Amino acid sequence: MNQTLDLLETPTLLLDAARMARNIERMQAQVRRLGVNFRPHVKTNKCLEVTRRLMTSSAGPITVSTLQEAEQFAAAGVTDILYAVCIAPNKLNHVLRLQAKGVQLTIILDSLEAARRVVEQSKAAGQPFGVLIEVDCDGHRSGVRPDAPELIEIAHLLQAGGQQFRGVMTHAGESYNCATPVALRAMAEQERSAVVRAAARLRDSGLACPVVSVGSTPTAMFAEHLEGVTEVRAGVYVFFDLVMAGLGVCSIDDIALSVLASVIGHQPEKGWTLLDAGWMAMSRDRGTQQQTVDQGYGLVCDLKGRPLEDFVLVGANQEHGIMASRSGRRDGLLLPVGTLLRILPNHACPTAAAYDHYKVLDAQGHISAQWPRFNGW
Amino acid sequence: MNQTLDLLETPTLLLDAARMARNIERMQAQVRRLGVNFRPHVKTNKCLEVTRRLMTSSAGPITVSTLQEAEQFAAAGVTDILYAVCIAPNKLNHVLRLQAKGVQLTIILDSLEAARRVVEQSKAAGQPFGVLIEVDCDGHRSGVRPDAPELIEIAHLLQAGGQQFRGVMTHAGESYNCATPVALRAMAEQERSAVVRAAARLRDSGLACPVVSVGSTPTAMFAEHLEGVTEVRAGVYVFFDLVMAGLGVCSIDDIALSVLASVIGHQPEKGWTLLDAGWMAMSRDRGTQQQTVDQGYGLVCDLKGRPLEDFVLVGANQEHGIMASRSGRRDGLLLPVGTLLRILPNHACPTAAAYDHYKVLDAQGHISAQWPRFNGW
Repeated sequence: MNQTLDLLETPTLLLDAARMARNIERMQAQVRRLGVNFRPHVKTNKCLEVTRRLMTSSAGPITVSTLQEAEQFAAAGVTDILYAVCIAPNKLNHVLRLQAKGVQLTIILDSLEAARRVVEQSKAAGQPFGVLIEVDCDGHRSGVRPDAPELIEIAHLLQAGGQQFRGVMTHAGESYNCATPVALRAMAEQERSAVVRAAARLRDSGLACPVVSVGSTPTAMFAEHLEGVTEVRAGVYVFFDLVMAGLGVCSIDDIALSVLASVIGHQPEKGWTLLDAGWMAMSRDRGTQQQTVDQGYGLVCDLKGRPLEDFVLVGANQEHGIMASRSGRRDGLLLPVGTLLRILPNHACPTAAAYDHYKVLDAQGHISAQWPRFNGW
Repeated sequence: MNQTLDLLETPTLLLDAARMARNIERMQAQVRRLGVNFRPHVKTNKCLEVTRRLMTSSAGPITVSTLQEAEQFAAAGVTDILYAVCIAPNKLNHVLRLQAKGVQLTIILDSLEAARRVVEQSKAAGQPFGVLIEVDCDGHRSGVRPDAPELIEIAHLLQAGGQQFRGVMTHAGESYNCATPVALRAMAEQERSAVVRAAARLRDSGLACPVVSVGSTPTAMFAEHLEGVTEVRAGVYVFFDLVMAGLGVCSIDDIALSVLASVIGHQPEKGWTLLDAGWMAMSRDRGTQQQTVDQGYGLVCDLKGRPLEDFVLVGANQEHGIMASRSGRRDGLLLPVGTLLRILPNHACPTAAAYDHYKVLDAQGHISAQWPRFNGW
């Protein structure tokens, strides 16, 4: 396969192989420096070809956000999987089916209530579950506070109920709101110390706590050390995106994912260029809206992936993107109908989710491969 | 197939068959009253089973927003298709392939530049295209103003270039920003009069203009008459959503689409209930944010589809939804882990696009069928 971009129908999703390779190497170097295991999160890419470039072995480990991801990667031979969303009881039978196929699928939970449901279902099935307790390090969403009495109670309930209690994990989602290197380093330390404190309390209560897991792309990149942590998780780093660039976690020219779009018209008196990439192609994500530089629905680049001044998608309908200059340049660069452009996404995860494959772009600007991806639950 | 909801894994997309049937009947009655043809837009549903309930015959007509939709419905026997996004030159060969299969696929454009590209490609292929000119009735995005000289020039260029010039179409996208019945009726009249004015000018210039097409769900529902119009298009009415309810186009209990989700945890001191439906399940659409009632990422309902007070998803991560009361009730209704809820979406189109099928809910609250849907371009 060696296709030039002008033979593609738009919109389509491009993956810049060289940028991706550089991003992967950067994270590998950081994880080596930190001296912990790496459990890549596959929720961003949902693609075997991408994930096999992230894993330390063909059996994993990986982190997933859905059981669909667990199914797909288990079918490809991955056996060490952490499902990093607190378990819903209606998914436990599915977890058992995956375990029966030889997958070591670890689930997480953060309440006595959920732990009781897990123990019940385990007893009914005659099979134990492998469980981590989610720790709340930043008030972002779920998890037990590291000092909460429930932390110890949940672990003992699981242990007494015959489960494989494996340890603790946390995710510093608030790192997405840290705007400076100082704040990012502090958040990485907050994430580390919270989960290490939880592990220490569990060990003090007489339990083994072999897994101490942290992770988010920003904290993984900015952690100064991970003493007491056994593994780190990260996913979006493989592609990066405008939100990560806005946080200073990467630069614009690290962003490996873009949407190829065509100019389909103009509204000259408004300085608008209409593109055939709307929110269905870019997603509705407006993650840069609260950042210093609002990138609209995406930053417009030429075919080499270089930004066209400050042109962004200032608006989007389902299949229409409205490109305009943030600083008011009105001529829309006089791009003729049919001009191909590449739009960098705010957030790689929802943008990629609109597609069932990646077109892999090589250093010559040709499509060298097409890699399938999947969606759904 | 007759499945109870407690046997499903969450999140999953439910389609309430009785609500959908009522919505379809309501639009049919309105179109009959208006005395025009109906060309349903399939971009919301992307599903053969839904669309065959909307069409006036098994051959169409329909409106599509992507050539993927055209392909799928052509394969199912639909032959009269309007592709209602200004054509990108790289899609013209695909249009020709569909025409060669016997599909009358009408394309649209709004510039001399695009018209020249269409004529060129038509000459190269030895096949004419069927074309409508898009008219801008509201400054919302694309289209030629009804009084612009280019309108006549484009049509004559197409005609002289051997194309099948079929007429004019417009879409009052600004109707989504009309908050009162008075404003909606005025916008419907603005949409009608703009396109009728364009058709009159084209006829005065000596051209036939057999198609005069308007449409959006709000204007279709609020139009008082459509004199001079030949067809109306609408799509989201089949499901409706919170944005439409916020505009007064439907009521909350007309919304036929919902996401089934599970309670997976709590943060009691914040009044949060955590659900396993985040923005991947609901979409990032925040279309009610600027409306009188901000529904967050979705309105939380019980299993009968009745709102739970004012509980909405106040936040969403990729696979987590944070449910809380808008008015500050803090107990999260004390819903146990595992409780099933139905979340109504802000915008049916992006929410449905996260799924590859609908679970069809019958009047007894059972799943009576599973209807596939497709995505992509």
